[in-house]
Amino acid sequence: MAKKDISKRALTLHKKLAGKLRIESAVKVKSRADLALIYTPGVAAVSTFVANRPAEARAYTMKGRTVAVVSDGSAVLGLGNIGPLGALPVMEGKSALFKTFAGVDAVPIVLSTQDPDHIVETVIAIAPGFGGINLEDIAAPKCFDIEQRLIEALDIPVMHDDQHGTAIVVLAGLINAAKVVKKDLNDCTAVVSGVGAAGVAVMKLLKRYAPRIAIIAVDSEGIVGRSRAYLNPVKQALLDTGVIAGDEAGSIADALEDADLFIGVSKPATVTAAMVRTMRKDPIVFAMANPTPEIMPDEAKRGGAKVIATGRSDFPNQINNSLAFPGIFRGALDHKVTRITDDMKLKAARAIASLVKRPTAARIVPDMFDKRVAPAVAKVVR
Amino acid sequence: MAKKDISKRALTLHKKLAGKLRIESAVKVKSRADLALIYTPGVAAVSTFVANRPAEARAYTMKGRTVAVVSDGSAVLGLGNIGPLGALPVMEGKSALFKTFAGVDAVPIVLSTQDPDHIVETVIAIAPGFGGINLEDIAAPKCFDIEQRLIEALDIPVMHDDQHGTAIVVLAGLINAAKVVKKDLNDCTAVVSGVGAAGVAVMKLLKRYAPRIAIIAVDSEGIVGRSRAYLNPVKQALLDTGVIAGDEAGSIADALEDADLFIGVSKPATVTAAMVRTMRKDPIVFAMANPTPEIMPDEAKRGGAKVIATGRSDFPNQINNSLAFPGIFRGALDHKVTRITDDMKLKAARAIASLVKRPTAARIVPDMFDKRVAPAVAKVVR
Repeated sequence: MAKKDISKRALTLHKKLAGKLRIESAVKVKSRADLALIYTPGVAAVSTFVANRPAEARAYTMKGRTVAVVSDGSAVLGLGNIGPLGALPVMEGKSALFKTFAGVDAVPIVLSTQDPDHIVETVIAIAPGFGGINLEDIAAPKCFDIEQRLIEALDIPVMHDDQHGTAIVVLAGLINAAKVVKKDLNDCTAVVSGVGAAGVAVMKLLKRYAPRIAIIAVDSEGIVGRSRAYLNPVKQALLDTGVIAGDEAGSIADALEDADLFIGVSKPATVTAAMVRTMRKDPIVFAMANPTPEIMPDEAKRGGAKVIATGRSDFPNQINNSLAFPGIFRGALDHKVTRITDDMKLKAARAIASLVKRPTAARIVPDMFDKRVAPAVAKVVR
Repeated sequence: MAKKDISKRALTLHKKLAGKLRIESAVKVKSRADLALIYTPGVAAVSTFVANRPAEARAYTMKGRTVAVVSDGSAVLGLGNIGPLGALPVMEGKSALFKTFAGVDAVPIVLSTQDPDHIVETVIAIAPGFGGINLEDIAAPKCFDIEQRLIEALDIPVMHDDQHGTAIVVLAGLINAAKVVKKDLNDCTAVVSGVGAAGVAVMKLLKRYAPRIAIIAVDSEGIVGRSRAYLNPVKQALLDTGVIAGDEAGSIADALEDADLFIGVSKPATVTAAMVRTMRKDPIVFAMANPTPEIMPDEAKRGGAKVIATGRSDFPNQINNSLAFPGIFRGALDHKVTRITDDMKLKAARAIASLVKRPTAARIVPDMFDKRVAPAVAKVVR
């Protein structure tokens, strides 16, 4: 379907629905007897019980089943900083996917503030009623600090999905892509274009999975390295912690020369077939800029790419967060997990990859609607 | 059913339900085509549209249907300051009633803070996704200031139900009680026991309905009046604005002498049959302390009370907020109301009262399950 048609149909559908979520009572309230149990006076016993035994709140209230999907609207899809109302349809959609894919109850919370301190204080303030916090579409670099502070402050899992959901699914795809081209990721050189929320998380998780991999980070100015006059703290930390070597300098074309993998989470049309042609044998190209990839699959193919993935549903190998976040939070809720650790993320990536028994160039990740995915991920998040 | 049995059954039911609300997707997501409309790429058109036309958010998202039920757990039912987890079962129950009685989607938000500034900042921060804010079980006197600041800061209706929901239903009951005893409220003397959230709102609304009524406020120290060495700002304001005359002093027994109405929103067992006997002819007694009233109905009757109401479902004339809040917010959402005005509250009280065609001593308010109530209230909130 053409983009214009999809937009038009989406608008019509959203107006008809007036929002994509419904909050329903789990119990029929038809009589005073019902009311006496779910509201006064019966509820007083439940309130007293839970107040005295906070750990039981998960069993006696919706806390144990419910996640907040929080956004300040500062980096919504590829639309940029469109604010909380613009973010709301996306957060509703995300919440609908939480329910559809993993049975998780999710509540969109869109914020009128974009100040990091205020965001942190707000999420801490509303946290008691939730079993997890999914941060969404919050701009880099503030997203890193906000997530870290919330993880430290709260006793429920906090995950910025733009970072870790993406990283998990990219790694799952890379694990299988490496199998297809019969390479060991530890022997590879990877070029990651885009050092925002997704790029940073991808690099960190990839390095953790394959410690001997060489990663070259590329931002809008070219290769991120020591020779730069100024690096922001996030990029500096990538160097300091050895996630990237940072010895090189140059353009994205320079970076791609003799690289094994390209991972794009940046801008449309920044890579050419000619560049892919300079990569090492059997290049792996993940071009995930949305909706227009860094390089279109047919052009990547012309450049000799062996495995090609995008963020789009109309090409093979769609790298989509929906493979990760529903199962991550399902597992976190089921197993009363207080933090999503790197170990869980690695296991989640392996679990997703392992669902494709015989990876091929056209199939490195399971289908989003594969019902095995969320349970497989949930199982390892414990 | 005995109280102990209700408590036991309530606990069992809550554990079975694991929370009384479910968040459901309003649309089936079964294919990539569905996904393309409710999530990427189609949702981008909706996000852009809404970001550019904020007033349309109500039509294209859940904002137009959804209310936040916010509590800091500082004054939960009669249980006191039991905190956010203790408050959660009550807020879930309240949200279930919103749906049951008026089809309003309501989301419980329980706060980890009890600081007024932090509460105000938090509610402002999360407000964009909601069409209204129902404040609940927040202690007096801070509740007055918190509500006022939020009303001024936000462009959606904010109502502290403990104040105004109670006031509306009490006034509805009084309108019909006055008919039963053939008195004009403007000629009456009312004694209001309890100068907390409910008491203050009851007095203000009653004075607005019947400007010539004489109101005597009683708190734990006795009659609130000018002779007191110190009055808190809320009580002082009742005097300054003429809601109470404040010329008298003395005990609750002194106050009741020659009074026409008693309205109790205070503590159990503070009024006796002997006191009721000193009231003017055909006393009206609303004893709404919960679960044990200021005076039990049979004792009030022994004292000569003509019309008796309580907050309990096991006696006639249950004065319950559920008659007001669902319809108030239903109307506010339907008519895109930005503030709940005193005029709307008066009209709501009249609308509730008018549903009882021929009031009798045993029937001054409609049944909570009377399906006409919420629509009748919603109709006047515009």
